[in-house]
Amino acid sequence: MTERIHATYWLETGVDPQLAAEVIAGEQSSGTFIALPNETPELKARSGARVERLDVLDRADRPSLQGGIESKVYTRCALELSWPIENMGPSLPNLMSTIAGNLFELRQVSGLRLTGLRLPPSFAKAYPGPAFGIEGTRKLAGVEHGPLIGTIIKPSVGLSPEETAQQVRELVAGGIDFIKDDELQGDGPHCPFDERVRAVMRVVNEHAERTGKKAMVAFNVTGDLDQMKRRHDLVMAEGGTCVMAVLNSIGLVGMHELRRHSQLPIHAHRAGWGYLSRSPELGWDYAPWQMLWRLAGADHLHVNGLRNKFSEPDDSVIAAARSVLAPVMPEAPMRAMPVFSSGQTGLQAADTYAAIGCADLIHTAGGGIFGHPGGVAAGVEALREAWVAAIEGVPLERQAERNVALKTALGFWK
Amino acid sequence: MTERIHATYWLETGVDPQLAAEVIAGEQSSGTFIALPNETPELKARSGARVERLDVLDRADRPSLQGGIESKVYTRCALELSWPIENMGPSLPNLMSTIAGNLFELRQVSGLRLTGLRLPPSFAKAYPGPAFGIEGTRKLAGVEHGPLIGTIIKPSVGLSPEETAQQVRELVAGGIDFIKDDELQGDGPHCPFDERVRAVMRVVNEHAERTGKKAMVAFNVTGDLDQMKRRHDLVMAEGGTCVMAVLNSIGLVGMHELRRHSQLPIHAHRAGWGYLSRSPELGWDYAPWQMLWRLAGADHLHVNGLRNKFSEPDDSVIAAARSVLAPVMPEAPMRAMPVFSSGQTGLQAADTYAAIGCADLIHTAGGGIFGHPGGVAAGVEALREAWVAAIEGVPLERQAERNVALKTALGFWK
Repeated sequence: MTERIHATYWLETGVDPQLAAEVIAGEQSSGTFIALPNETPELKARSGARVERLDVLDRADRPSLQGGIESKVYTRCALELSWPIENMGPSLPNLMSTIAGNLFELRQVSGLRLTGLRLPPSFAKAYPGPAFGIEGTRKLAGVEHGPLIGTIIKPSVGLSPEETAQQVRELVAGGIDFIKDDELQGDGPHCPFDERVRAVMRVVNEHAERTGKKAMVAFNVTGDLDQMKRRHDLVMAEGGTCVMAVLNSIGLVGMHELRRHSQLPIHAHRAGWGYLSRSPELGWDYAPWQMLWRLAGADHLHVNGLRNKFSEPDDSVIAAARSVLAPVMPEAPMRAMPVFSSGQTGLQAADTYAAIGCADLIHTAGGGIFGHPGGVAAGVEALREAWVAAIEGVPLERQAERNVALKTALGFWK
Repeated sequence: MTERIHATYWLETGVDPQLAAEVIAGEQSSGTFIALPNETPELKARSGARVERLDVLDRADRPSLQGGIESKVYTRCALELSWPIENMGPSLPNLMSTIAGNLFELRQVSGLRLTGLRLPPSFAKAYPGPAFGIEGTRKLAGVEHGPLIGTIIKPSVGLSPEETAQQVRELVAGGIDFIKDDELQGDGPHCPFDERVRAVMRVVNEHAERTGKKAMVAFNVTGDLDQMKRRHDLVMAEGGTCVMAVLNSIGLVGMHELRRHSQLPIHAHRAGWGYLSRSPELGWDYAPWQMLWRLAGADHLHVNGLRNKFSEPDDSVIAAARSVLAPVMPEAPMRAMPVFSSGQTGLQAADTYAAIGCADLIHTAGGGIFGHPGGVAAGVEALREAWVAAIEGVPLERQAERNVALKTALGFWK
């Protein structure tokens, strides 16, 4: 039996849902606008996308998106389509054109969102997945249990390499596990990549030699391909243990090539995710989206955080984090590490742990660490202690009675 | 004086617009969520994004997008921001993280759309732009004046290489200028790329030897980088004159690398454009989007077509086409060729010509050519004749009196 690709959608349509489903299936496979003699029943059976499931959910009297066929009623459905892999082969870019191509523009559609994806084993043979994943990251960062406690260099841009290194010095002295560049920090003339890496790694390496603990620093290598490779090589040469890339900025080919070249974990940033997802009736859910990037090689994937400073509700954050931890497919789990960030403190530890059921994650806090009256070390300790409490099921207030740093933190975390 | 990047947005916000603008500027440059001692006035002056313009357009009592700060009134504005190029250097991927990164997710935003982009000359020094553009395409296709008359191989997928070549045989015999693969057609086992190219080019080359006219065929090379390069090389070796790539599927790095490798014009498909644009209160206008891809090297860019089968209104199609023909910047025009498609016939020729003021374009029709009762040659002739009429300002009906193919076409085009 041929392998098939399955994708699910939330669909809203002003026409008969069965017709809309068939139009989408046709547009994304063998269909044509005007019926042509070449589109034989045999060809359709072989290459046509199949409507596997179509469940009406509810109805609305106004369309979510404009430009569709007008109607008095708009039906919302859960739609599942499938394609034979022979249509495109196990190719991530061509998969993307198929599951998320022209269909969003159809007039038979007044709302369409890609909600799920199930891929056959051929894709796991064609793509490597994360080279390090959870275990490899833990080993490199020297963190056996619990989350990696992390932070982001701020201000995002504007610091010189030396100022950046100075901030890193404070952080590694404070026992941090993980530090990342801001996604806006690349290789600008005020803070050239090479100088930044050298200055930062000098600090990280010195500390590692003295204490045996080497903080993982995700240097943002985002750029053209040669630049990314060269930057990766410099990070390697300087003893660094992680590179970071902005997925929407480099694209699938960029990620795949970076993975092929890289000997370090790839920290994947999702900047731009908002334009793909913030209209609930259009675009992408995180689950199918992150699957493509994990196949291409992402080791860590950003998922925002509970009670974040952005507009994403908590249930969406949790669904995203669970999808990163779920297997890509039973034959090839390719598990990656979710990265929680944005307005995070130890106050979110217990809820985060309860929601995802493990601590295989990176928890980054900015103000939640730097704002600690006892300094950065106390900030790191407090966040780590909040996770000890979360994992052991101890209420924060009780844990705080045994730990001064946490107790102080509870006074300013909110 | 330092070079600056300027981007304009349509912004809707539930807070004071000036505050929202400052939050966006901060988030996308030196700003932090919690004010930090490192963010000095000097640093902000050097690296902060600047609010250049903020004009209130109108107000609404409901937010366009959910998840923002709630309010009784939502103000809509035209916002212009600028950044010093020192923040990211002339790098397309890092530019993308900056102008279209986290900002869409802000709670101070209930609607945000990137509407325009102005780049300094450094970007034209760092990126090549289209290698062929309008002139190079005309030369290779042997079409000095008027549009390239084109079509798409249909059914999209399902035809074998031989069946594809058979369709091409009819088309080149009919005098077509341009043929493209469907964006769903890649390198699947039912229609392997190599066999398809060999079969199609055999037909195209034979016709060219006999008649001197070589139709341009855009073979869809979309895939991983090595695959794209190898496929490009095969097209070259077989005497082909164009390759096609799906931009959203390969990403900016993929496009840049393809451009570096390619010795042929790159036909750029925008499949997936709907999820970037169909919510008018979110995402991207075509003008800034296509500018990035032209800098990276796109020679032809899809812009849909007037009275298309999709949901896009005509004014948006025209704006898109004009943006492709407009200079990327005065110092480096990098003009590319807009590609009109979807439900197209000769009936759209005059309006298209009137709207964009030139015929430097590719006009592709499927049913509008294949549906001609006189056959494909008559279909091609009718569409070309409709353009002659458009350019000469002659009404179609009058032109039809001098041309049988056009006269017949007017009976089935609608």
